[in-house]
Amino acid sequence: MYAISVNDGSLQWTEVDAPTPGEGQVRIRVEAAGVNRADLVQRAGRYPPPPGASPILGLEVSGVIDLAVEGGRFAVGDRVCALLTGGGYATHVVVEEELCLPVPDGLDMVQAAGIVEVWATVWRNLVELGRMSAADRVLIHAGASGVGTAALQLAGLLGARTFVTVGSQDKLDRCRALGAEAGVNRHDGPWVEAVQAWAGAVDLILDPVGAGYLEQAQEVLDVDGRWVLIGLMGGRRAEVDLGRLLIKRQQLLGSTLRALSVARKAPVLRALETTVWPAFADGRIRPVVYADVPMPEAERAHELVSSNETIGKVVLTTP
Amino acid sequence: MYAISVNDGSLQWTEVDAPTPGEGQVRIRVEAAGVNRADLVQRAGRYPPPPGASPILGLEVSGVIDLAVEGGRFAVGDRVCALLTGGGYATHVVVEEELCLPVPDGLDMVQAAGIVEVWATVWRNLVELGRMSAADRVLIHAGASGVGTAALQLAGLLGARTFVTVGSQDKLDRCRALGAEAGVNRHDGPWVEAVQAWAGAVDLILDPVGAGYLEQAQEVLDVDGRWVLIGLMGGRRAEVDLGRLLIKRQQLLGSTLRALSVARKAPVLRALETTVWPAFADGRIRPVVYADVPMPEAERAHELVSSNETIGKVVLTTP
Repeated sequence: MYAISVNDGSLQWTEVDAPTPGEGQVRIRVEAAGVNRADLVQRAGRYPPPPGASPILGLEVSGVIDLAVEGGRFAVGDRVCALLTGGGYATHVVVEEELCLPVPDGLDMVQAAGIVEVWATVWRNLVELGRMSAADRVLIHAGASGVGTAALQLAGLLGARTFVTVGSQDKLDRCRALGAEAGVNRHDGPWVEAVQAWAGAVDLILDPVGAGYLEQAQEVLDVDGRWVLIGLMGGRRAEVDLGRLLIKRQQLLGSTLRALSVARKAPVLRALETTVWPAFADGRIRPVVYADVPMPEAERAHELVSSNETIGKVVLTTP
Repeated sequence: MYAISVNDGSLQWTEVDAPTPGEGQVRIRVEAAGVNRADLVQRAGRYPPPPGASPILGLEVSGVIDLAVEGGRFAVGDRVCALLTGGGYATHVVVEEELCLPVPDGLDMVQAAGIVEVWATVWRNLVELGRMSAADRVLIHAGASGVGTAALQLAGLLGARTFVTVGSQDKLDRCRALGAEAGVNRHDGPWVEAVQAWAGAVDLILDPVGAGYLEQAQEVLDVDGRWVLIGLMGGRRAEVDLGRLLIKRQQLLGSTLRALSVARKAPVLRALETTVWPAFADGRIRPVVYADVPMPEAERAHELVSSNETIGKVVLTTP
């Protein structure tokens, strides 16, 4: 098979041995793979794959089963999308059958490649960890990112109100079209006052930034508010106001999806299939794909993501 | 009635008007009142009573119902203990009937006066917020305090293992006798290595200290570990390592009991009655009373608590 390998820091399309499925695993002939910001961090050496994971980049794919589990749910030829701990930038990948889902009705393979990682991420963080309810006011940073566009749509689907921060007016317009109730371009100035003017305070924040945003997060979080940290784009050292944490009963929750066990990821995927997949099928929500790029040109795809110009997902397609 | 009032910073036994119960409230003729560290903070002006609460100090009492709710659970003459938002340092107090519990079988009124606040605190923070399970390794700071002695006994009752930090060898011995598996005298040096030697890492920390302990907390917290902050004895400004928070999926949870609504406190008390009160009755756990002091001498009781020499609770008794 072919896969992207990282050689001296550059991405190269290389022939490598195809993986063999272990017990409970299927093999997928990959049609498309989603690009995630985590891939760029891993490539830079700052997000090593968890033990047992493929060293190849790529956390999600769509494709066709080419080796099935005997007596399993999926048969050879079935169209699936899958959540990986690695290995997606390749023509073939193995993954636990439990971490595969059928391609939602109405989506093509490019769209399906970019939904599992971001929707599992937002389900895990907003619903499971953040205990989002229909009464909640939710602040979503990087609202136009892959995770952001999924987060604001999931919040809308479950009845919560959303405010986004983004990096351009164009992104803000797009988020509004996807259901964000309000938002700000962070280049226009501080967002704290805008959030307070919108809803007084918020109940839940989804934050890929970290340091630099924590102080403001504590300012806008209401009593019993939850701050879910899913990235460190702003750095890792921050000061926390423990007085506010205590008196307001705030919660600071660190989260990564990739290192969770299969046993903890599988229920997330089942919840997506039950609650989110039908909403793709009937158009209540939609995948947001910014560009699809041939997989051998993965370098260009990473440049796109690095540019911070993208809205939604960049997807790689196999030749 | 008589109550303790704060005049120019000193505590004085003063005649004041007796309170009248509102809807759903009973009045208790107080026999004894527990002293909590929060009382000292409130007296110093740094922990104002929540809206609607009595300005009189005192978060828990035992006594006898002298005005009942019509058709309610308790009748005039019933012996109860109660969780208050204030008003305990007095001969009479009014409180929602839902926040009263019968005095556990086998306990006298002095013992009963010092159990509701601390046991509600540890149930709320270890079980509800900290999601303590029987497999957990639990670190309890100030293990010999009222809250600490309840926390280590609750953990033991539910099957979890405990490590305490305390301020003297005497306190450590007492905590061991109450079920702490291990512990350190914090004056003997840093506790991080001792905790790691004990169990590698911990799943849950109950911390009344705050600043000064957060960095070490993050060092000893395992993946999915929870740090529940219930006090600020060490100050309110601290640096947090967001990298560790994220990668280890740590949770920093601020908590206060007093400001919770009656609707959220009542289930805590029902859980205590079901799970903890029978354990008092059959001796699996025991109240820890360090001293009882006549209520008009409340000043002396506060000096005792300030001394940090006490093990367990100081209780005030009405004349």
